[in-house]
Amino acid sequence: MALALEEAALAPGHDDIPVGAVVLDRDGVVVAARHNERELADDPTAHAELLAMRDAAASIRSWRLTGMTVVVTLEPCPMCAGALVASRASRLVFGAFDPKAGACGSLYNLCADPRLNHEVNVRSGVMAGEIAAMLAAFFGARRGR
Amino acid sequence: MALALEEAALAPGHDDIPVGAVVLDRDGVVVAARHNERELADDPTAHAELLAMRDAAASIRSWRLTGMTVVVTLEPCPMCAGALVASRASRLVFGAFDPKAGACGSLYNLCADPRLNHEVNVRSGVMAGEIAAMLAAFFGARRGR
Repeated sequence: MALALEEAALAPGHDDIPVGAVVLDRDGVVVAARHNERELADDPTAHAELLAMRDAAASIRSWRLTGMTVVVTLEPCPMCAGALVASRASRLVFGAFDPKAGACGSLYNLCADPRLNHEVNVRSGVMAGEIAAMLAAFFGARRGR
Repeated sequence: MALALEEAALAPGHDDIPVGAVVLDRDGVVVAARHNERELADDPTAHAELLAMRDAAASIRSWRLTGMTVVVTLEPCPMCAGALVASRASRLVFGAFDPKAGACGSLYNLCADPRLNHEVNVRSGVMAGEIAAMLAAFFGARRGR
């Protein structure tokens, strides 16, 4: 999560909300690390965890991320939680909950729906205090402009 | 939808499930047309409508697809329905319902959740018979291998 936080810290450099993500393979080796690039790339899908999952899949030349762990600073939105299911990732570790858009416990629980063809093991709240402070600082500075 | 069906027909050429999508701007002009490339690209996020939304955003150099209409042959999954919300697309038109993974009426209704920061106007069932037949033929042939 410390590495995901380092990634998150890079996003405000291009006016993106500070969210960072890393993907670990089954041996715990980091295979991808990305941050939010929605504004930078003019891409509505360029959330940190979705970019990191795409990189991880490219690195193993397979869309199946079986055995892999996605670590992200903020609770995934419906798109990203859906991507976790679609990718067959095994584990999700996230930091702060997102009460407005979170889809892994807050508004939805897409990673734990037995009707879908895959479920993702979820751990939450890791380094949540530091992450909430980083987000608050970003939005505070933006409001102050 | 006829153009989305033409796109869908291209996917089995690379062993992908036949799903196609187009994006229309506010004047009804097609700005993107894609098909499912999950197998081709080794990318778990390479669903037709997600690729088409990314192309549409690139074409206008903005992640906001305000005013745009996404037309897709199959009901979007949670990832793609979440991407519709994230992109602020105005309208979704889809063909066949997907009772196993659909997130626009079947299992979820992510495009019509007032708790999220955007809602998408949805029309469903367009050319559903042709689309269901195309999908049935694809899965039938695959089982027969």
